[in-house]
This record gives sequence, C-alpha cells and structure tokens, in this order.
Amino acid sequence: MTKEELQSAIRRAVHQVRETCPLVPSITNMVTMSLVANAQLAAGGSAAMINLPDEGETMAAAGSAMYVNLGTMLPVYAETLPRTVRALKVNGHPWVLDPVGIGMGALRMELFRGFRELTPTIVRGNASEIIALANLWQLKTGLLQDGVRGVDATDSVQAAGPAAQALAKWIGGAVAVSGEQDLVTDGETTLLCQGGSELFTKITGAGCSLGGVTAVYAAVADPLVAALTAVQLYNYAGSQAEQLSRGPGSFEMVLRDTIYHAAAEAIAAQPFEQQEEQS
Amino acid sequence: MTKEELQSAIRRAVHQVRETCPLVPSITNMVTMSLVANAQLAAGGSAAMINLPDEGETMAAAGSAMYVNLGTMLPVYAETLPRTVRALKVNGHPWVLDPVGIGMGALRMELFRGFRELTPTIVRGNASEIIALANLWQLKTGLLQDGVRGVDATDSVQAAGPAAQALAKWIGGAVAVSGEQDLVTDGETTLLCQGGSELFTKITGAGCSLGGVTAVYAAVADPLVAALTAVQLYNYAGSQAEQLSRGPGSFEMVLRDTIYHAAAEAIAAQPFEQQEEQS
Amino acid sequence: MTKEELQSAIRRAVHQVRETCPLVPSITNMVTMSLVANAQLAAGGSAAMINLPDEGETMAAAGSAMYVNLGTMLPVYAETLPRTVRALKVNGHPWVLDPVGIGMGALRMELFRGFRELTPTIVRGNASEIIALANLWQLKTGLLQDGVRGVDATDSVQAAGPAAQALAKWIGGAVAVSGEQDLVTDGETTLLCQGGSELFTKITGAGCSLGGVTAVYAAVADPLVAALTAVQLYNYAGSQAEQLSRGPGSFEMVLRDTIYHAAAEAIAAQPFEQQEEQS
Repeated sequence: MTKEELQSAIRRAVHQVRETCPLVPSITNMVTMSLVANAQLAAGGSAAMINLPDEGETMAAAGSAMYVNLGTMLPVYAETLPRTVRALKVNGHPWVLDPVGIGMGALRMELFRGFRELTPTIVRGNASEIIALANLWQLKTGLLQDGVRGVDATDSVQAAGPAAQALAKWIGGAVAVSGEQDLVTDGETTLLCQGGSELFTKITGAGCSLGGVTAVYAAVADPLVAALTAVQLYNYAGSQAEQLSRGPGSFEMVLRDTIYHAAAEAIAAQPFEQQEEQS
Repeated sequence: MTKEELQSAIRRAVHQVRETCPLVPSITNMVTMSLVANAQLAAGGSAAMINLPDEGETMAAAGSAMYVNLGTMLPVYAETLPRTVRALKVNGHPWVLDPVGIGMGALRMELFRGFRELTPTIVRGNASEIIALANLWQLKTGLLQDGVRGVDATDSVQAAGPAAQALAKWIGGAVAVSGEQDLVTDGETTLLCQGGSELFTKITGAGCSLGGVTAVYAAVADPLVAALTAVQLYNYAGSQAEQLSRGPGSFEMVLRDTIYHAAAEAIAAQPFEQQEEQS
Repeated sequence: MTKEELQSAIRRAVHQVRETCPLVPSITNMVTMSLVANAQLAAGGSAAMINLPDEGETMAAAGSAMYVNLGTMLPVYAETLPRTVRALKVNGHPWVLDPVGIGMGALRMELFRGFRELTPTIVRGNASEIIALANLWQLKTGLLQDGVRGVDATDSVQAAGPAAQALAKWIGGAVAVSGEQDLVTDGETTLLCQGGSELFTKITGAGCSLGGVTAVYAAVADPLVAALTAVQLYNYAGSQAEQLSRGPGSFEMVLRDTIYHAAAEAIAAQPFEQQEEQS
C-alpha cells in the first residue's frame, strides 16, 4: 500500500469503530484495567474485562476482537488463557498480545510459550519485549541469540526491527514496537511513526491502553492498519495532551479527552514514513 | 409520598451521609473499584473493598450497608458471596446488587440464581440487565419470556418498567434502571428521572459507581429514597460535569468534584416525576 | 541529625530517585494499584505490581525496594507474601509495609503476625493501624493493652507516638504515622510534619500511594530519611493541590502533576520539627 492508501485505511478504521462500537473484551492486568477500558471507550469501542475460563470462551465468541495482557497474573489464568485463545481461533476473531513482563514467572512464561502456536494477530510491546518474545519463540531474527532476555527498556525501536519483522511473519499479522519513535510492521511493509510524548512514561498504562485500542481497531481493519491506526492515534493524542497539560495527572485526563475528539484526518496526518529496505 | 416529601427525604439522606460518613464495603469488579470508592468518598461515605469469605462476613457486620457487583469474577467468590450475603441478612444490613454481566459464566449465573432467595435490598442496572434478572428469577413481568437474555444495552428504560416493578416487589425493596432517563421503583411508586450526560457511556464505571453511591444512601434511608437520591445526584452531577468538561477524561474529574460539592437542594431539585398508573 | 542535615538528606533522596529511576515493585491492593504506580512514576521511580509467589521472589531480587499493602486479599497471598519477604531478606532489600485492614481476616492476620519476625524496613499507617500492629506484636508501648484493636481512624497521631517508636525499634527501621499532622520516627529521632490537605481523605489511595512512594525513596536512602522525604513530598503536594483544585477529582490530578514537578528544595522546606523528648 502507498502512504495515501494507508492514510485512507486509517481514516476508515477510525470512522468504522465510532459507527459500529465493536465489543472488544480483555484479559488484562489489574493496574491499568481502568485506563484500558476508558481508552477503548474514548476511541469508540465497548469494553469488558474477564478472568474466568468459561467467561473467556464466551467473550472470545461474543467480542469482535480481544486484548490479552499478562501484566499481573492470577492462578486461574493457567486455564483461562489457553481456553480463551482457542475459542478466538475457533471463532476466527483477531486478538492482540502485549508481552509485558516476559522473562518473569513460570506460569507467565508457559503461557507465552504456548502462544507460539496459538498465535496472536497483533503483538504490541517495547523493543526489549519484542526481542525477548522473538527469542523465546526461537525465530530467526539475524540477531545474536543470547537466550531469553529479561525485560528492560534499553533496546531501541530500530534495533528491534528484525525481531518485529520475524514475529510478524510468524504470526501472519502485525507487530507494533513502542518507543521514542514507533515501528509497525507486517513483515513486508515497515513503518516508522513520529509523535507522542515523554509523559507516556510517567503514567501507568500508556502501553497497555495502546494495546487495548489496537484490539478495538483490529475488530474493523486488517492487522497492519489496526496497529498503525492505534499508534497514530496515540502519537497524535500524546502530542496534543503534552501541550495542554502540566504533568502526568493532567496529561492522562487530556489524553482521554483527545482520543475521544480526535479527527480521523488528524490521526492519518500524524507523520509516518515507510522504512527503506535494508540489505 | 408526594413529590415534596420525596424531595425532603432526598435532602435528608444527602445531609445524613455527610454527617455520619457511613462505612459501606463492597465486593466489586476490578475495573472500576477505584471510581466506586472515590464516588463513595466524594458523596460522604467510607469505602472498603474485599475478596475473601471471612472478610466478607466481617464487613457485612461492620458496615452500614454493602455493594455487590460481579463485573469481574474471582474463583473465591463462589464462597465469598453466599457467606457475605447471609451475614448481611443476619445483621439486617441493606445491600445493593448490580447484575452486570448477567447471562455470562457458570459461577456468575449460579450466584445470581442464589440471590433470588438471598434477596438484595436494591437492584441497579440497565434495562436489559433488569429484564434478564427478572426473567432469571421467573418473576411475572407481563413480558414475553424468551428465556434468559444476554446483556445488551438496547432495551429502553420504559420497556424495563414491568420487570423493575416485579423485581422490587419480590425483594421488598427498590430497583433503579439506568438509561437516557432513569426509572426508580419500589413496585408501587415509580419515578422517572431526567438529567445526566451521554458522556456517562464514555467512561468505565459510571453505573458501578452509581451503584456504590446507592449503597451509601441505603445506609441512612429506605430503599426507594436511597435509590432515588443516588440517581438524582448522578443526573445532577452528570449534567454539570458535561458543561464543564471537554471529553470523558475531564468529565470523570469534574463528576467527582461535583458529587463532593453538590448541594442537597440541587440534588432534590433535579427534575423527576411520578409515572402515571398504567392499565 | 540536625534539621539542616535532614533537609539536605531529603534533597539528596529526591534527586537520586529522579536520576536513577529505581525499580520498586509492589504487592498491593487492587483498589489503589493505579494511583500507587502513578505516584511512584511521578516521583521518578519505576513500578511493577505482582501477585504470584515466584514472581514475588523474582521481583524481590530485581527491585531496589518493595512495597507491601494487604488492602485487598487474594488466596494466593498465603504463599506469595512469605516467599517474597524472605527473598527480600536474602537480597538485603528494604521494604515498606502498610498495615491496612489490620484486625480483619484470618489470612491477613496470619501474615501480619509473620511479619513480626520477617520485619519490614518501614511501616506506614494511620494512628489506629500503628497502635494495632504494635499490640499485635506485643511490643511494650507504655499504652494500656486491650487486645488487638479494630481499624478506625479515631486515634490521634500523637497518641500513636509510643507505639510508633516501639515498632521502629523492633524493626530497626522507621515508622510513619499519617494524620492531620504526620509523625516519623526511627525510635530515637521523632519528627512532626505539617501540611497536606483534608482532601486526602476524600480520594482513595492517598495513604497507599504515600507508602508506595516511601518505598521508592527507601531504594536510595536510609529508612528515616526515606519515610520523611515521602511524607514531606505529600504534605507539600497536598497543600499545593488543594489550592489549585475544586474537589477530590481535580485534587488527585493536580497531586500527580505536583509530585512530578516538586522542587527538592520545596519538599525539604515543608515545615517539620523534632519532637521534644518526653519523660
């Protein structure tokens, strides 16, 4: 797709969500549940958070897409996650995985390993998480493999490019890497997106809620467009909110206001460019 | 009661809560716990959220009233809910049930079925939830019974009137139905309340926190007055907040500010009227 | 230490946190998780909340300090808390305990009893909680012991002084008592701190987030200085936020903004004094 075609697809996704209000349930961490739901509502979707296995199956069928974030673990997830993801597959519904906390915890790691075959449609994380997930799944990334890496935020988004592309190809979907600039790829087309705010790192749930909103767009658009639309929305709303706020508290408030009001044109016009082929 | 008597009772409930700061514990969903507690505090009550069975019993005895919302389920609720509600009965303490998520999940449905005999004092939900609960309990509503219905927000408040009245009579308490206008009934007197804001649907926890505040007023007033006072407060504060805000983020902030400052007179003066007898 | 030395240590702690961004994980209650994390981020730290035993051990090793608050209990805590606290001891990492809800629940009380030997580095609570914990641990406080007391907020901060000093000596750390004025002690030096706002009682999580921020400073300073710095920060930010807000909603927002921007000098200059020796 050309840049103009992508921008047109972004505008379409924004409008379609606002018109159809898709139900996008989540299994997501307790810390940021509220912001995830609020961001999904502000973007025009409908939210529902669940913990139990049979409710996961019900919601996998009832929802148009789903968001999974293992930031805080509960013992019951051992059963809930596999059953829910299998139900998503049976129903052919897209889902977004946030590999937060990768590297920590036996149950969390077992679930992440299982998602190698029960693949998500979109993965959204920071550079270190994306590299760690590609390594965990033993994908060929062209990077030196030094075992599973712990979570840190020190890897640059560009450095995670090969891992993101390998992941995207493996899942047959899209990967979004969050950082100072953001990278979105489906394994073929790779886009670099500008904007956002340093204050995203001073509120809890910026990444989680971006993932939740990505799932909302996945209900109406293909994986690359869904991931790109959410990243563009957050880059636009973050830039706006930074100008209109005085710190992390007001930033979060204005962010929600701006997500609600953001014009589809402004979201599509937020700067992004196709990455040059690297040899 | 005449409208003037109801308004006088509303003002009394508002003042009494602010003077006595009743402790109103909750078993409530994780997504909106924070807003429920904050709304209860802003209205003048005291909040405490619990999960475990023995703590439910302790709080059922220690609190003046309780709020139960099964929006997100935990396995331990299978034991916590029946024990807590029985302790509420033993202590003669009122409690408010929010039938959110009715139609989904084996444990949730088992608990909802159990509440047919372990009746709440007040039920607060949207039209579809109220109809679904009345059907689940097989109450005579005059409506065609087509089995238990899933949750949707498409039923109008007026359509839920017969179900609300049947529920109120069954529990010997009051039922509040939230929607564009709100309906409050004790099975005999039925009131239609105006106000609020479309933005209530763009934040998570508007209904939950209304339920939590209803429980705060139930600590000091009879069921009909408690339900009516909370609905009036939210209709007033929602209207005010919409005028003073720029989207869902600032709306939630101003809502909390307004609940805190709302004059008893303004809450009582928010428009409501008695529904004409229907034949 | 003289007052000037304490003020200098406060300024150092504030700067060091902002420069090093220490990771300070929490096992903390669901109601206020989000505000705890947001306050820790605003102060300059890094947050992570966990529930499971092996993740507690991992985080006890990986973090620079930890925050424990049993406001809402989960069954898995029976295993998570002892294993996590033992790992904190093995790693020599400081941790802050908030004795919220003391007096209620078999599991909660069993855990609180266990902390008598697996001692925290800092305890932060209101007057009644501090007295209840000293009594539970059967420390000599010079107060009449009438058994373990339930939680109430009626005891004055000054009345809790002997209990706080006995606790601080027992743990070999520091204790902070929150109230209209705040008391911070390491058992030898006792400080009384002024400021804050009545609105702290009208939002949920003021005390919890103060505890979380205390743990952030414990990552870089000794217990007395860490507890004092957090109390001073909250007294300063609370006073500022009250002036700039219109109720509890805007108060919470401005509080986060102010924590983020607060100058080290202003935090150190917030009024406090050493308590005269009592005979």
